[in-house]
Amino acid sequence: MSEENKYTFENEEYRKTYWHTCSHVLAQAVKRLWPEVKLAIGPSIDGGFYYDLDAPFAFTQENLAQIEAEMRKICKEKLKLERFELPREEALKFMEEREEPYKVELINDLPADAHISFYKQGEFTDLCAGPHLDSTGRIKGNGIKLTACNAAYWRGDSSRQTLQRIYGVAFPKKEELDAYLKEREEALKRDHNKLGRELEYFTTVDCIGQGLPILLPKGARVIQQLQRWVEDTEEKAGYLLTKTPLMAKRDLYKISGHWDHYLDGMFVLGDPYDETKECFALRPMTCPFQYQVYLNRQRSYRDLPMRLGETSTLFRNEDSGEMHGLIRVRQFTISEGHLVLRPDQLEEEFKGCLALAKYCLGTVGLLDKCTFRFSQWDPANPNNKYEGTAEQWDHAQSTMEKILKDLDVHYSIGIDEAAFYGPKLDIQYKNVYGKEDTLVTIQIDMLLAERFGMYYIDENGNKALPYIIHRTSLGCYERTLAYLIEEYAGALPTWMMPEQVRLLPITDRAADYCAQQAQQLRQEGFRVEVDSRNEKIGKKIREATLEKIPYMLVVGDRDMEAGTVSVRTRTGEDLGAMTVADFTAMLHEVVDQKLKK
Amino acid sequence: MSEENKYTFENEEYRKTYWHTCSHVLAQAVKRLWPEVKLAIGPSIDGGFYYDLDAPFAFTQENLAQIEAEMRKICKEKLKLERFELPREEALKFMEEREEPYKVELINDLPADAHISFYKQGEFTDLCAGPHLDSTGRIKGNGIKLTACNAAYWRGDSSRQTLQRIYGVAFPKKEELDAYLKEREEALKRDHNKLGRELEYFTTVDCIGQGLPILLPKGARVIQQLQRWVEDTEEKAGYLLTKTPLMAKRDLYKISGHWDHYLDGMFVLGDPYDETKECFALRPMTCPFQYQVYLNRQRSYRDLPMRLGETSTLFRNEDSGEMHGLIRVRQFTISEGHLVLRPDQLEEEFKGCLALAKYCLGTVGLLDKCTFRFSQWDPANPNNKYEGTAEQWDHAQSTMEKILKDLDVHYSIGIDEAAFYGPKLDIQYKNVYGKEDTLVTIQIDMLLAERFGMYYIDENGNKALPYIIHRTSLGCYERTLAYLIEEYAGALPTWMMPEQVRLLPITDRAADYCAQQAQQLRQEGFRVEVDSRNEKIGKKIREATLEKIPYMLVVGDRDMEAGTVSVRTRTGEDLGAMTVADFTAMLHEVVDQKLKK
Repeated sequence: MSEENKYTFENEEYRKTYWHTCSHVLAQAVKRLWPEVKLAIGPSIDGGFYYDLDAPFAFTQENLAQIEAEMRKICKEKLKLERFELPREEALKFMEEREEPYKVELINDLPADAHISFYKQGEFTDLCAGPHLDSTGRIKGNGIKLTACNAAYWRGDSSRQTLQRIYGVAFPKKEELDAYLKEREEALKRDHNKLGRELEYFTTVDCIGQGLPILLPKGARVIQQLQRWVEDTEEKAGYLLTKTPLMAKRDLYKISGHWDHYLDGMFVLGDPYDETKECFALRPMTCPFQYQVYLNRQRSYRDLPMRLGETSTLFRNEDSGEMHGLIRVRQFTISEGHLVLRPDQLEEEFKGCLALAKYCLGTVGLLDKCTFRFSQWDPANPNNKYEGTAEQWDHAQSTMEKILKDLDVHYSIGIDEAAFYGPKLDIQYKNVYGKEDTLVTIQIDMLLAERFGMYYIDENGNKALPYIIHRTSLGCYERTLAYLIEEYAGALPTWMMPEQVRLLPITDRAADYCAQQAQQLRQEGFRVEVDSRNEKIGKKIREATLEKIPYMLVVGDRDMEAGTVSVRTRTGEDLGAMTVADFTAMLHEVVDQKLKK
Repeated sequence: MSEENKYTFENEEYRKTYWHTCSHVLAQAVKRLWPEVKLAIGPSIDGGFYYDLDAPFAFTQENLAQIEAEMRKICKEKLKLERFELPREEALKFMEEREEPYKVELINDLPADAHISFYKQGEFTDLCAGPHLDSTGRIKGNGIKLTACNAAYWRGDSSRQTLQRIYGVAFPKKEELDAYLKEREEALKRDHNKLGRELEYFTTVDCIGQGLPILLPKGARVIQQLQRWVEDTEEKAGYLLTKTPLMAKRDLYKISGHWDHYLDGMFVLGDPYDETKECFALRPMTCPFQYQVYLNRQRSYRDLPMRLGETSTLFRNEDSGEMHGLIRVRQFTISEGHLVLRPDQLEEEFKGCLALAKYCLGTVGLLDKCTFRFSQWDPANPNNKYEGTAEQWDHAQSTMEKILKDLDVHYSIGIDEAAFYGPKLDIQYKNVYGKEDTLVTIQIDMLLAERFGMYYIDENGNKALPYIIHRTSLGCYERTLAYLIEEYAGALPTWMMPEQVRLLPITDRAADYCAQQAQQLRQEGFRVEVDSRNEKIGKKIREATLEKIPYMLVVGDRDMEAGTVSVRTRTGEDLGAMTVADFTAMLHEVVDQKLKK
């Protein structure tokens, strides 16, 4: 931070320092108001800061306002931040005297040779590695906002104490805070976990459980449309459809390596360690199941590449703290596929997979915001997390690097993000809160074919080992639906909408006419409803707009006589009177071309 | 058996008596050949008889021939069958002296006041309630055939001894036996468990497990076509599609009653009896999941009937002895649906369900061989197998009886075959071996709505309880595929065939032309392949016929020049030269009309 321009808020390092000092000011304010509260940790994060606190009461909205006021006071006090170090014993004594057991535990866990540093501002001192601003006066008091208070486990461990995490943001100008809060409010309106429930795309219920969403008729219809389209697209791309069991005996997962590398993430039926009894597990991935299709008969070099695709339901035993709406769930369905190929076909087939994924993501309108991550193993990984040798990994990763370079893919690198059997190209997406997850993955696997004895007979009549690409062409359908709801704020492209057209008769006579027109539109393959309730037309339009119905056809007596319908869109556009034939032609274009409207 | 015509083989009672005596002759022959073999039980069954034996060796085909020869001898000996009774102690002593431990166990288990009867023929005596023919001479020796030898558990209990069950058939005339064996051979050729594997519709592998079939690309494609068609048909019939989780916490099944009535049939994740821990189970039925869709908001009388449909995967923990091919499996997918309705809508909606099921079964060509069973509870059932009171059951069953009468459904009655919550109309089908299973079911449920608090607001603004119909519109897809393979001997109707057309070029020049024509046919929505291997045309036709490909288009240079294709069918019919346009039109009719060819 030697140059002047590093001290501006646009600089990430400066911004993090700013927010880190804010977290100390937050803690200081809390200790002034409630000295009995114990401090855990308080870092800066992407987009703000938090402090984890152990309080004998639950913080209310009023408490957060009290804390904010006290924080503003501390900023005005312009307290100087001073760093100092203490030897281990003195550091422990310092925090023991202040009765801060979490800080004591942290100090005890520091390496023997660590420099134990503290930051002091006024009467408040925190164990901290820094860096920090030089004075609380650098923080703009009315640019601070405490945004939430959630539960969090001490050290992220669900068997330890439950703490309260107070989140905050802060900006050097009040206007910046206001702009941020407004933007966040807009983002929250798009949150699929809120909007998706309001629009009745999905719900969850306690008696079924967390991470097991119920797709209501609207959500089920969107997913049906997406699945059929992906299956058909894959069929055209030369994929063979399979339908393999959702569970298998332990034996299968032992061959595949899932038993050694993935057991914690699996739902097991029975005691996994009792070898005297049959034990089944739900599948977390489709690979070992689809390999059985390959193994059903002997394959020759002429049969390769064999491209297998499946609309596959998977189960993963996620931690309860990890689950979120439709994005992170315990059961999901995905267009999972495996390509078994000769080594000489790798580049061509990888290219095909990437093109297919880009086509699918582009068509639904998510591609533009995707980023690419080249997920590699961790050569220093001590946990035996990966199969294979360093040589095998180097070979697989350098092959993949070459392919990515040839395809001109711009990617970041994710160390220790590989699958246990090989490196991945992950296509990443962010939700409205900025949290990133993987939407699509393309993986190179040079290891598993041998474990399953998946040979082919080469041109010389010898047994040879194929490579395998594991891939998806769209994200898992639940997660994709979540991102689509957020991207389009619920107004999904017409082709996938559960209800594409709603006819709104103004009079009783028009109601019969509407029913006939609806039937005709349905015969064209469109999803159409008629709102013939005895309500004012304004109310009907308002409701259809809130439900994001793409096209509203308002029909009065005059329209009937003229053989037309008055077309409105969910964006409020008035397309005027059209014959049903003209409207049908327009709608066919929108739907058949999968336009993003 | 007082009238003369009762002593003919056409009379079921006489036939069973005949076969029962055959089983004694079988046991007598075995004891003559290998006195050390122990006898278990030997009844007549539908279509023949068997005897369960405990032998210190495995019976071979040669052994079966030896036994048959000895049985013929016994028939020629015209041994008189004599019935006698013994008091309990003497009966036990009789079998203990003969070292028949299974017979001793059977006697011990007889009620204290039972008449313990025996049948004696020559040197052989068996514990038996009869009745029997009066002489082994009544049996035609060369009308006997021992057909199989399988493993069977003593008393059907998998924790007891494994015995060998020798099956046989017998007819009073040699020609009848020959005709029966020929018919059986033909049936065996249609057995989906053999033919379905040969045609690569499905397979199973040990490391995944029994009852968990892998649908290979051909089977997966047929099921995809059936599923889409059923989903679309249900949409037109006013069903709302849902997609609900495949598992739930124990809590859900406790509300539904499955925990009390169906736990043995369920796959449970974790210890079902440890209430201190979260426990999930895979769903055996969709009902309690789909009810959550109804419960998502308050419903009024105007919202009913609400028809919910789902392409639903279910799991049932079948006994390993019960499983068979695709007919009885541990995981299957079914078009399951629930109609929530006002009591006044019951008859109309039941009628709709029956019409839908008949339409679906009729379209695929299975309806003609279906039979109907009215499955009722067992009022004398001591096992607490059913929910509700006798009054509730009487009401539900008499309501259903009235509806069935009104709809003129001809049915048999199945006592103790009801669901735990209500009576069923089961549509039954037989496999090639004559074994009957349920294909489609329509059930009336007046009990579960209350357990789930599924009210609606009636016209007076009061809470009212709806009735529920549980129903399917086609059998579970795996079972339906099995019956289709057996019904059509693998030559499924063209509309559902995984490959509908195969182009067979005679020359290299024709191969390119075929590729173009194939592309054109694919654009019409047909599933088309080209066999451009360098093989004789006769071989290509033979292979395509064996694979039951509906249409083979043979193309030589002359066809190319004339712009035609020579069309052959899998039945060997030669449709002659046609333009591709004419063939396309013909194929559209066959496929779009879902003709049974």
